[in-house]
Amino acid sequence: MPVTDPKEILKGERLAISRALTQIENSTQEGYQLLEELFPHTGKAHLIGVTGAPGTGKSTLVNQLAYHYRRTEGGEKAPRLAVIAVDPTSPFSGGALLGDRVRMQDLAGDPGVFVRSMASRGSLGGLAAATANLVQVFDAAGYEIIIIETVGAGQAEVDIASLAHSTIVVEAPGLGDEIQTIKAGILEIADILVVNKSDKPGADHTLRALRSMLTLSQPHPEDIAHHGPAQQATQPTNDLPSSLWSTPVLPTISTIGEGFPELIAELANHLDYLRTSGEWQRREEKRLKNELEMLLRDTLRTRWENKISATKYQYTLDRVVTRKLTPWKAVQVLLEGAGL
Amino acid sequence: MPVTDPKEILKGERLAISRALTQIENSTQEGYQLLEELFPHTGKAHLIGVTGAPGTGKSTLVNQLAYHYRRTEGGEKAPRLAVIAVDPTSPFSGGALLGDRVRMQDLAGDPGVFVRSMASRGSLGGLAAATANLVQVFDAAGYEIIIIETVGAGQAEVDIASLAHSTIVVEAPGLGDEIQTIKAGILEIADILVVNKSDKPGADHTLRALRSMLTLSQPHPEDIAHHGPAQQATQPTNDLPSSLWSTPVLPTISTIGEGFPELIAELANHLDYLRTSGEWQRREEKRLKNELEMLLRDTLRTRWENKISATKYQYTLDRVVTRKLTPWKAVQVLLEGAGL
Repeated sequence: MPVTDPKEILKGERLAISRALTQIENSTQEGYQLLEELFPHTGKAHLIGVTGAPGTGKSTLVNQLAYHYRRTEGGEKAPRLAVIAVDPTSPFSGGALLGDRVRMQDLAGDPGVFVRSMASRGSLGGLAAATANLVQVFDAAGYEIIIIETVGAGQAEVDIASLAHSTIVVEAPGLGDEIQTIKAGILEIADILVVNKSDKPGADHTLRALRSMLTLSQPHPEDIAHHGPAQQATQPTNDLPSSLWSTPVLPTISTIGEGFPELIAELANHLDYLRTSGEWQRREEKRLKNELEMLLRDTLRTRWENKISATKYQYTLDRVVTRKLTPWKAVQVLLEGAGL
Repeated sequence: MPVTDPKEILKGERLAISRALTQIENSTQEGYQLLEELFPHTGKAHLIGVTGAPGTGKSTLVNQLAYHYRRTEGGEKAPRLAVIAVDPTSPFSGGALLGDRVRMQDLAGDPGVFVRSMASRGSLGGLAAATANLVQVFDAAGYEIIIIETVGAGQAEVDIASLAHSTIVVEAPGLGDEIQTIKAGILEIADILVVNKSDKPGADHTLRALRSMLTLSQPHPEDIAHHGPAQQATQPTNDLPSSLWSTPVLPTISTIGEGFPELIAELANHLDYLRTSGEWQRREEKRLKNELEMLLRDTLRTRWENKISATKYQYTLDRVVTRKLTPWKAVQVLLEGAGL
């Protein structure tokens, strides 16, 4: 693979971007080097997370959202937009089934849109870390909007939520009773709630139920104080609590594009709120702190790995499996074996 | 909190178990000490993972499964059974909404059943690690069946799947088209597939669709070889591939208890398969390897943390947030600062 010039990426050249993404996903030395050179040029894009349970029509929604972003602002003023589709529910089969998305046909040929599916679980250390790296490439390449789509409703969503500036949680009408009790946790990561397929029976009920749940789950004053000293340090002149943002609940019908101008308007409102409240700065800090933490753990692990023999590791593992050694003692043995 | 005698746990005394679980969840020194003493007594329980998307009636299914395990084998012969309910979808609100589960009323008062909800994300290092620790307490205390219930459909499920001996994936009729493409990954972690709510319209279609997907997703010979040298090392006299287990698809109606004798029979079949094929040993090794890996990362992280000042860390983080330092350089700086 030829050497990628970071300048080409900064100019937004598709081929260079595409090559860089592959190098980074494959954890090549050149990939690391590129990230290093691109990092000072990042921090400008609006990162939008889109998440929700399977069956809510999330992918169609992302498609329409991208389409409307490109269309509503018209012509040259439309923001450049990247979509990163993350599929953690398919770790064994190696990710997205549809490759780089048949579904994005509406956008095919639009040079202002770049769609990338995460095929792997990210060898640079976990799904969230790998996604963060791809985000940095698009950010440096001048994409103003970066949509990160995640499938499922679990830990991955939380990791992604900590990555995005604005998180859209997608729901659909006709959900059972069980989901109502589960939803409380997911609600708390939502900056904007969307009830998609709002032409289906029960849509009004779902809208009402979500709105009343949101009212019930208003944060207590202690929760706001709970953000701790880091928050206060970064915004000494501004102590607006995040509860000043009141999560809107919007109906959409992705198949026919209904509700999307309103959704884009709410995203603009949220961006405005982030900037004026100091929350943008707080989320940036939290995001980069997470990234540092992940890198630190991986680096420590790699350094240790380079110091221990595979034979020693296997021998110790065998002793754990046969219950001759506890996992905690085994870790001590392995660290001593590496001279740590 | 009084000192917990590990002998009381080994005898299965509820109060001692309950206290131990809390100490372990709170990462106390005594909690670690207990795990250390209990570990040699583990490795006997049959670990059953139950997972699936919200709305499939998973919790009711777990309830019925526990009830039938206690009832079908009748009287004193019934296995002692523990349920660990993990709720990763609710990390911000601190876990299960219903506390230690109103829903388990059928089982309340049965001294052979112990239900525990994971309220926290597990300070001993991640949800999977915390679950693994609770499993060890129940295993040492003589619970023969340990059911681990996870909500959602993402990374957490994969982590839990690597923890359980037998994984049940729960589905429900009436799923959209989107879910059909997603499911391929989840199918691969299923040892037993259950279509719950099988009295609902579309149940036959879902059963047929899942059965045909399973036929399509038979592993290729390369995939079996992919298990690598560790597998060969632990079972030199036995090279039965895991494809000898053919995943059954069972209909259930949890609300009225239909299909549960059949489900319990399939779980017994799977346990038998695990033992005779050498797969039990392979899964044990994989599980303990994961656990060692998690402990190792945490220990390395903690050792580093004890060597660096909070001021230095915050200063470095601030320089990353302002893009004066890249995250990769920052990690080098932080490791040097700790003398590593």
